[in-house]
Amino acid sequence: MDKLIQQRQETINLNAGPSPLPQAALLTAASSLLSYPETPGMGIAEISHRSKAFEGVIHQANADLRQLLEIPDNYKVLWMQGGGLTQFAATVLNLVAWYRIKNQTKPEEEVEAQYVVTGSWSAKAAEEGARMGVKTTKIVDGKKVGGDKFKTIPEASEWQLNASAEKKPAFVYYCDNETVDGVEFQAEGAKAFPFDKIDKDVPVVCDMSSNFLSRPVDVSKYGIIYAGAQKNLGPSGVTLVIIRDDLIVDLDAALPYGGARVPSMLSYKNMAANDSMFNTPPTFTIYVCSLVLRSLLETPPLPLASGARPLSPLSSYADKKSSLIYSLLDAPEGFYLGTADKDVRSRMNVTFRLKGGEALEKKFVAEASEKGIKGVGGHRSVGGIRTSIYNAVTLEQVEQLVEFMKAFQAANSN
Amino acid sequence: MDKLIQQRQETINLNAGPSPLPQAALLTAASSLLSYPETPGMGIAEISHRSKAFEGVIHQANADLRQLLEIPDNYKVLWMQGGGLTQFAATVLNLVAWYRIKNQTKPEEEVEAQYVVTGSWSAKAAEEGARMGVKTTKIVDGKKVGGDKFKTIPEASEWQLNASAEKKPAFVYYCDNETVDGVEFQAEGAKAFPFDKIDKDVPVVCDMSSNFLSRPVDVSKYGIIYAGAQKNLGPSGVTLVIIRDDLIVDLDAALPYGGARVPSMLSYKNMAANDSMFNTPPTFTIYVCSLVLRSLLETPPLPLASGARPLSPLSSYADKKSSLIYSLLDAPEGFYLGTADKDVRSRMNVTFRLKGGEALEKKFVAEASEKGIKGVGGHRSVGGIRTSIYNAVTLEQVEQLVEFMKAFQAANSN
Repeated sequence: MDKLIQQRQETINLNAGPSPLPQAALLTAASSLLSYPETPGMGIAEISHRSKAFEGVIHQANADLRQLLEIPDNYKVLWMQGGGLTQFAATVLNLVAWYRIKNQTKPEEEVEAQYVVTGSWSAKAAEEGARMGVKTTKIVDGKKVGGDKFKTIPEASEWQLNASAEKKPAFVYYCDNETVDGVEFQAEGAKAFPFDKIDKDVPVVCDMSSNFLSRPVDVSKYGIIYAGAQKNLGPSGVTLVIIRDDLIVDLDAALPYGGARVPSMLSYKNMAANDSMFNTPPTFTIYVCSLVLRSLLETPPLPLASGARPLSPLSSYADKKSSLIYSLLDAPEGFYLGTADKDVRSRMNVTFRLKGGEALEKKFVAEASEKGIKGVGGHRSVGGIRTSIYNAVTLEQVEQLVEFMKAFQAANSN
Repeated sequence: MDKLIQQRQETINLNAGPSPLPQAALLTAASSLLSYPETPGMGIAEISHRSKAFEGVIHQANADLRQLLEIPDNYKVLWMQGGGLTQFAATVLNLVAWYRIKNQTKPEEEVEAQYVVTGSWSAKAAEEGARMGVKTTKIVDGKKVGGDKFKTIPEASEWQLNASAEKKPAFVYYCDNETVDGVEFQAEGAKAFPFDKIDKDVPVVCDMSSNFLSRPVDVSKYGIIYAGAQKNLGPSGVTLVIIRDDLIVDLDAALPYGGARVPSMLSYKNMAANDSMFNTPPTFTIYVCSLVLRSLLETPPLPLASGARPLSPLSSYADKKSSLIYSLLDAPEGFYLGTADKDVRSRMNVTFRLKGGEALEKKFVAEASEKGIKGVGGHRSVGGIRTSIYNAVTLEQVEQLVEFMKAFQAANSN
């Protein structure tokens, strides 16, 4: 083990997902794979999901998550499988059923859903919504205003909220942080999500996969929040869904109103009624998530420079780490060129190009790797550089990254 | 680690699922959680699913599985999420689409699927099929012939294969081993699955979740085989699907013929076209499966008593282990009473009652637990005793179980 930990100390893992996990959580998980303290001789992956020991794991995880995000009592926490792509469909199928039952729609009546498209993932979500037969309206199309690139979020005043206002949409959908494009809704100000513009009867659905647990969230403003685990929460293979009670309906009850036949496993009602154990959940994956949640609860916030406003434990590290890199991107030399507009920059995925071009970017990735800095190539669809600095990437590691970037710049400027 | 291994040696884990995994696989997995040899400093759960290192894992797992089951080239191996319950729907949605395209059905035309119901899981599968809108015919109902209990498989001559023969069903469905009820189709003879009775144009779909990799399988007889990992293959959270090429269709192409709108993640075509990486798969879980597959390949078959027919590596242990317990159930005293008919007994889940009644069964469970024998309570829906002896339960452990059962019988017979 000592050798493995030594290797970890020599490595800065900036993968975009699956991404690094807290070392303490991994050490505990490794031990529990062989023998879980509450079931000596049996590993945590080897016991029934209906055992007291595993029920203890998932209940504690739920309690810790509720504490971290201050989740109101009228919201359920669900652990599901299938990643964000499954939620692209599940949110539509469940909320259209909710809408149809509530409005007693005629079967042939079309239901609308509004999508705020600010990057590659929200674009995909809108596509899947259309495939599910919902009338999909893009009330924002970031690519149109970004010159064929996702790099900006238009002001709320420009959103096409009333594109089809004769009746209300079933929901409004957005993605809080776009992993591929490095575009993030801000916590406050003009580029925060404009909840006040959204009709109060229309639930807001948010994909928080890649900035989950990186800042406080007012959960009460949302209908559904979901997040794939493999960024800030745990290994890939589980997706957290936080849903307001009144949106949870019996999907089959929507059939007379034109609802679709939906696989049982995609029913939020089935998941909620069975405490996420409608069938065998990914027990080990949830266990690791529970360890990560615990470690987040136990992490103290960064000490503040005097005069700064108090930062929450969740956001303090993300704000500080990202600002260190962005300050390099803002340097007058323009050696590093941020790809996202300054006012919508992601605190999780810092995306940039090198003024020197693709050959220099390749050199950057290769030299970073030699220094133990891994996973900095941009997404295959956009190229460039992406440094993903999720919660498990330490401030110290980001400082080392910044040192490397400065040295690389110095060595490659003429 | 030594203490954990000591604890494992004092424990016989007979959980029905999630269930024990080979210790060597767990030791390797625990180490790789911290640092995977091909990506030093980064654990196997912390690297991109599109990295060369992880692609190596899944490709090797596929190759090993193909070798173990001698999977023909015209079959795809898919790693999916959501467990058997998701496959209950996915098999229907994909095969009905295949059927509709092939037969260019009118949208309003009903499609039939035939279910062989021999236990709790196939009964659930038939329910989900009906929910998906398919006309579900139970060509076998084990409960009807078993006196309201699943304990028998009727002879093929009694199957209602022609219940609605004016046109062919989209598929015939069965469950190879019923975990709850301890009922298993046999490898050969009168209680083997009667492929010769099934129309050659009708694909056979089989849920092999709980006896996967416990005996050789002639894959070419099947349209689709699937198996949740959490019995013989790995941790919960991944499901293997083996599907014949010609059954893989574009689901949207079935829409004009009355096909349903199906979430992208349930499309076998999407999974096959993307080598199971249509989105982020459960990477760590698949990695553990890859280690289990490797260990199976490296396990030699049991040495044979002279005169016995040669046993395959996959089946030799399962046959031997289960026969040791069943010989106690067949003892003339009738202290232990098997619940399944002798000719359909499961080699994976040995289910029985105690003649002495429920109080004695409770005592049995408690005393077993004191001796380190865990997880022997029957499924909550049927009660009694169930000893699940999946591949990772050693012959030695089963011998110890049998010794305990003999001692318990001696101490509690009057």
